[in-house]
Amino acid sequence: RPRVLFFPSRPSCTEALLAEAAGLRTTARPCPCPLPRVDSSLSRLLRHLLSARRSLEICLFAFSSPQLGRAVQLLHRRGVRVRVVTDAQYMGLPGSQIGLLRHAGIQVRHDQEDGYMHHKFAVVDRRMLITGSLNWTTQAIQNNRENVLVVEDAEYVKPFLDEFERIWEEYNPI
Amino acid sequence: RPRVLFFPSRPSCTEALLAEAAGLRTTARPCPCPLPRVDSSLSRLLRHLLSARRSLEICLFAFSSPQLGRAVQLLHRRGVRVRVVTDAQYMGLPGSQIGLLRHAGIQVRHDQEDGYMHHKFAVVDRRMLITGSLNWTTQAIQNNRENVLVVEDAEYVKPFLDEFERIWEEYNPI
Ligand SMILES: [Zn+2]
Ligand SMILES: [Zn+2]
Repeated sequence: RPRVLFFPSRPSCTEALLAEAAGLRTTARPCPCPLPRVDSSLSRLLRHLLSARRSLEICLFAFSSPQLGRAVQLLHRRGVRVRVVTDAQYMGLPGSQIGLLRHAGIQVRHDQEDGYMHHKFAVVDRRMLITGSLNWTTQAIQNNRENVLVVEDAEYVKPFLDEFERIWEEYNPI
Repeated sequence: RPRVLFFPSRPSCTEALLAEAAGLRTTARPCPCPLPRVDSSLSRLLRHLLSARRSLEICLFAFSSPQLGRAVQLLHRRGVRVRVVTDAQYMGLPGSQIGLLRHAGIQVRHDQEDGYMHHKFAVVDRRMLITGSLNWTTQAIQNNRENVLVVEDAEYVKPFLDEFERIWEEYNPI
């Protein structure tokens, strides 16, 4: 399995992947879109996220990709403890997934700072770090030169988990 | 040595570090600025870069930090083969280091694409990958929540080197 994903992602249909993860039968009604059902950087990123069984920490400057938003909601419904930290400036822009995630009952906190909360990482089950240059937006996935690393070495995962907890506490609105 | 650097960086004076790397005596005329001479994420990032002996590939969306610009020029003067890839949209903005690097004789290529060249990585001596969310700007270094990973595992370094070479060829203006 590749440990580095590059973008722009090859266009591919991710419906079967998401439907399967949601426990739906996909053979009965295959997606009518013309995109090939092939592995792509986006499908690999989705698969890594969908491997979560217990917890998912997400720390993202920008989050507007509908596919990634569906994956996160699906994990939440499956009982995975999802926590999201994001940047206040971007959160309110059109297409942001943050409102939908909150509406679904997912915990979201945002910065109250001058600087940007510019991280783009996630941690799956406290063991897999997913990080890089990629914001989770359709623009970035389809058009930009981007990278995502998938790392399971505790030497890297632990500092990012600690950073997440620091930010999570700091952005506590109470 | 920490393998992950977080930002904003603690404010610190990097003059002695840069002067020493340039082969200047620093004891004779210490920097008059009031910043403490302590280790910081910025000084650690500089030290990793300044460890280059043969080659430095840089692939950056935005590059405006004067300290990091000086470090790169210093390596070029020291005979390190420096190549820079950057994004056309950002390159012309005020404060960009790209013009200064070109003026110093460093090879720079930029995209001619619609999407952003959004990578933020460097490879030192084909063995050390420096990558993360951080653009090399003073704003990001001083004010943003950012991360930088330092990785020497070939499983990660090699794909980034290959990506650099792909982009380098693709952006060849000839
Ligand atoms: Zn489809
Ligand atoms: Zn100083």
